[in-house]
Amino acid sequence: MKNDDVMNIAKKRGFLWSSFEIYSGVAGFFDYGPLGGTLKNKIMNKWREYYVVGEGYYEIESPTIMPEEALKASGHVDHFNDPMTECKDCSEVFRVDHIIKEATGKDVEGLENQELSSILSEEQLCCPRCGGHLTHVWSYNLMFQTIIGSKGKKTGYLRPETAQGIFIPFKRLLRFNRGKLPFGTVQMGKAYRNEISPRQGVIRLREFTQAEAEIFVDPKNKTHPRFDEVARDILNLYSAHNQTSELGTGKLTAEQAVQQGIISSEILTYQLCLASRFLKDLGIPEDVIRFRQHLPSEMAHYAIDCWDVEIETDRYGWIEIIGIADRTDFDLKSHSQHSKEDLRVFIEYPEAKTVSKLVAKPKMSKFGPLFKGDAPKIISALGEVDASYIRSSLQEKGDYSLSLDGQEYILTPEIIEFQEEEVTIRGDKIFPHVIEPSYGIDRIFYSVLLHCYQEEGDRTILKLPADIAPVEVNVFPLVNKEELALKAQEIKNQLRRNGIIAEYDASGTIGRRYARSDEIGVPFAVTVDHDTLKDSTVTIRNRDDSKQIRISLKDINSIIDDLIHLKTEFNAI
Amino acid sequence: MKNDDVMNIAKKRGFLWSSFEIYSGVAGFFDYGPLGGTLKNKIMNKWREYYVVGEGYYEIESPTIMPEEALKASGHVDHFNDPMTECKDCSEVFRVDHIIKEATGKDVEGLENQELSSILSEEQLCCPRCGGHLTHVWSYNLMFQTIIGSKGKKTGYLRPETAQGIFIPFKRLLRFNRGKLPFGTVQMGKAYRNEISPRQGVIRLREFTQAEAEIFVDPKNKTHPRFDEVARDILNLYSAHNQTSELGTGKLTAEQAVQQGIISSEILTYQLCLASRFLKDLGIPEDVIRFRQHLPSEMAHYAIDCWDVEIETDRYGWIEIIGIADRTDFDLKSHSQHSKEDLRVFIEYPEAKTVSKLVAKPKMSKFGPLFKGDAPKIISALGEVDASYIRSSLQEKGDYSLSLDGQEYILTPEIIEFQEEEVTIRGDKIFPHVIEPSYGIDRIFYSVLLHCYQEEGDRTILKLPADIAPVEVNVFPLVNKEELALKAQEIKNQLRRNGIIAEYDASGTIGRRYARSDEIGVPFAVTVDHDTLKDSTVTIRNRDDSKQIRISLKDINSIIDDLIHLKTEFNAI
Repeated sequence: MKNDDVMNIAKKRGFLWSSFEIYSGVAGFFDYGPLGGTLKNKIMNKWREYYVVGEGYYEIESPTIMPEEALKASGHVDHFNDPMTECKDCSEVFRVDHIIKEATGKDVEGLENQELSSILSEEQLCCPRCGGHLTHVWSYNLMFQTIIGSKGKKTGYLRPETAQGIFIPFKRLLRFNRGKLPFGTVQMGKAYRNEISPRQGVIRLREFTQAEAEIFVDPKNKTHPRFDEVARDILNLYSAHNQTSELGTGKLTAEQAVQQGIISSEILTYQLCLASRFLKDLGIPEDVIRFRQHLPSEMAHYAIDCWDVEIETDRYGWIEIIGIADRTDFDLKSHSQHSKEDLRVFIEYPEAKTVSKLVAKPKMSKFGPLFKGDAPKIISALGEVDASYIRSSLQEKGDYSLSLDGQEYILTPEIIEFQEEEVTIRGDKIFPHVIEPSYGIDRIFYSVLLHCYQEEGDRTILKLPADIAPVEVNVFPLVNKEELALKAQEIKNQLRRNGIIAEYDASGTIGRRYARSDEIGVPFAVTVDHDTLKDSTVTIRNRDDSKQIRISLKDINSIIDDLIHLKTEFNAI
Repeated sequence: MKNDDVMNIAKKRGFLWSSFEIYSGVAGFFDYGPLGGTLKNKIMNKWREYYVVGEGYYEIESPTIMPEEALKASGHVDHFNDPMTECKDCSEVFRVDHIIKEATGKDVEGLENQELSSILSEEQLCCPRCGGHLTHVWSYNLMFQTIIGSKGKKTGYLRPETAQGIFIPFKRLLRFNRGKLPFGTVQMGKAYRNEISPRQGVIRLREFTQAEAEIFVDPKNKTHPRFDEVARDILNLYSAHNQTSELGTGKLTAEQAVQQGIISSEILTYQLCLASRFLKDLGIPEDVIRFRQHLPSEMAHYAIDCWDVEIETDRYGWIEIIGIADRTDFDLKSHSQHSKEDLRVFIEYPEAKTVSKLVAKPKMSKFGPLFKGDAPKIISALGEVDASYIRSSLQEKGDYSLSLDGQEYILTPEIIEFQEEEVTIRGDKIFPHVIEPSYGIDRIFYSVLLHCYQEEGDRTILKLPADIAPVEVNVFPLVNKEELALKAQEIKNQLRRNGIIAEYDASGTIGRRYARSDEIGVPFAVTVDHDTLKDSTVTIRNRDDSKQIRISLKDINSIIDDLIHLKTEFNAI
């Protein structure tokens, strides 16, 4: 299986391995080794090229530890649960939905614990390990819990997603963007899920890296100013309709997908295109990428439309590596309610409107003497109430009762009069909607390794795009003679001084060195031979087709630099 | 106070603010805002230029959650404590060393809890808040604790330093480096300390970012191959001797510091120079940097030599922002003992040695019949024991008793004979020593803001080096007319497409826009005026001296790119 070959090389050559191996390991944790750490960084920097430089969304960094209040508001304390059951005989714990899915094929996402318990007993399901009896179903919260400070009073959790760290300081972000929509903010960083028993390698980690953009838009305007740049991009769509009708995927241009109403908005479609371009830039071929729309039954209740970007794998089938959702105003509204902070945005009308408005005014000659010192606050409270409501109360009941700071004030027709006034309204205060592309960096990393890995005859090549390869160039002496070795080391050092990640290798035959170099995806190899000492030329070998060309040493920095940053093609040198 | 001015701008303009403000905040946590997040990234990427590209140390990434066994081995579970006391009256908790330091000026670092209790009662110290009685002293562990998995059995902690994540997979890292010393590995990422009551802003965070390099060296060879490149660098040293003799700091070249034995090794000195160059590249002036050596009393018991890189601040005095230590073989030895894995490195002698060695050999004619099936394992065990020890036991006691798998085997002179044999020894297995530069990125970030902030007349300028400025260039229309605005936006978009972080601003007078731009440290501003439409030229204004030059639009990408990446000076255009 390609997965196993890739993971073997990943472990052996220093991309990725299980963490804490010398302490027998802990499931769900991986180390990125020397090559993996560098590759992951380059993937993340590529993402920044798209979102920070390209889209103009600035990057923030918020803490990974969050106080309970904030995650109560986001819904994670109450709802970020998996339904669990335990075997009475062998004491192993299981996810109930997994047991039911495996035994019956039924998808039970979203069902209550009681319903799940009923299914377990109706279907007479037993422990998959020992066949024993299963207990009742309970909810297991997937957040890692901890305590902040010394007195043990403040509960904290490791964040389940980076998104919340963007919603919470929304007012500051809005101010940074001068109060205007749309704007985006991104965050890359660790997120955590305390999975019960993760068994799928780097696909299901307890600690993982997310890159999320939260794009705040006017709910009435879900366009994208540069949609024309992607309008003709082709998307391999697996819509909800195609899934339920068992139709397979269909290819449409971005423009068609919007016009046919398959994707709910222009800006969401734009995000699908951006994701597709990003993945192709990482060397993932188009034919293993598809966009799967959430079925109405699986979509979060607050979302309007969600698309998973999926990648085909031989080991795990189609896996989600990016989620793109229209989260509506759910998060901002909820944080607003819980924190009592107004997180709305003032949206100015194109032109101010002048409207006629009924106003309730106190007759001060009677009002003043009646309420004395309380009068000002009653007047101010009156302004907050719809005047037509006060008028009908006076007409129907004869009075209107105003409750203020726990006290009751009775207003009668004698002390209130009504007027129509002209008022100018410049705009509305609204909660923005949120468009969220959420990238799982570890799964993307895995997909890159998997799909850049090629076997060609007896060659094993990791065909990483040159601009994300962790080692950018190898420098070899053709044979291990001192004068060639010294020259090769000098070239390596010079490339390093120019910011290029160059390595020197003189061990084994040149063929063996090329093979080692191909296996970890070094895109170019420079070889120093006897002619180098005579005429200051070297050969550069291209990893993907083994072609070699001879260049002058004086051009080496600029040539390698252009090749690595994809400014020139190898065959065009 | 400069600190307050800087922190005000940091909050107002989007560099840095207290986290979770809408939930009343949690002490010890900060958000990096849109400008701060970008600046922090650029500082971290600059660090990578030094350590990853320059030194050739690859970057790894290990989990922030670690299992208890690993932190037991590192000593953190037992020793990463602060001594605490509580007020019996107001229930506030305090660090005992802080209370004693404030009341008596005494530094009590390293004293046992019992000794601290005695000092509290001898000195009759009371609660600093309410004057109440203080309880006994206890140890408070500074790690955030959590539970891994569903059954509540596996204790985990958030890592207190990134270093341990490099020591644990040492065998894999050694293999990646083909078994040879020296090599370095770096890690950048979050580390955590559950401080009792952090009150010093970004200086004392509960969640912070470290950048650490662990450089594994042969204990007998603490040189650096490129020491000559830094030998004449000048270091402002505050040695332990100068501190105890109250002599102040002294300036020496790196070479002198090694020759005079003030810094314990060449490689440690090289690290001091690297830190100094890095900080100056970030815009921190030389005169606020000093290197303070740990006094013998404050140094960790396993360390040979430690230097803090300190920065002068108006609010907090001299603060440590980098620690550079020779950690010896403490960590690898300890993980080796706890994990039972051999973490030693084979160091080959320059030439193999042939030595004469006494060998104990079984006389098989008697040995075989006596021990039968057990014979092979006894023979193999014999090879592990020093033969001279067996011989003297036989001579003195008449036999030698070998305990194997719980069984006792008695060896007598009749069944053993001794020979001198020639053996070739190619090298030794040793634990490498570890040289560790440990950078506190948040404090470095703070130092950069503090020391790049300048007031000049009525101008406020953040003199960030151009290559770390979060916004790289602003594009302004001279006046807010449509044709100028469109041209300016077009230039901004074009710069963005070339990977430059450009912003457009047309709000307020041009003077007001320059002022806003200076305050957040945008190094260059491009202004579009009426001539631009005629002859395709624009002005570029240099932040630091307000000088302007006129350039042709066709050169703008390359000029801005060269300016930002410090490839050319403004006055040389």
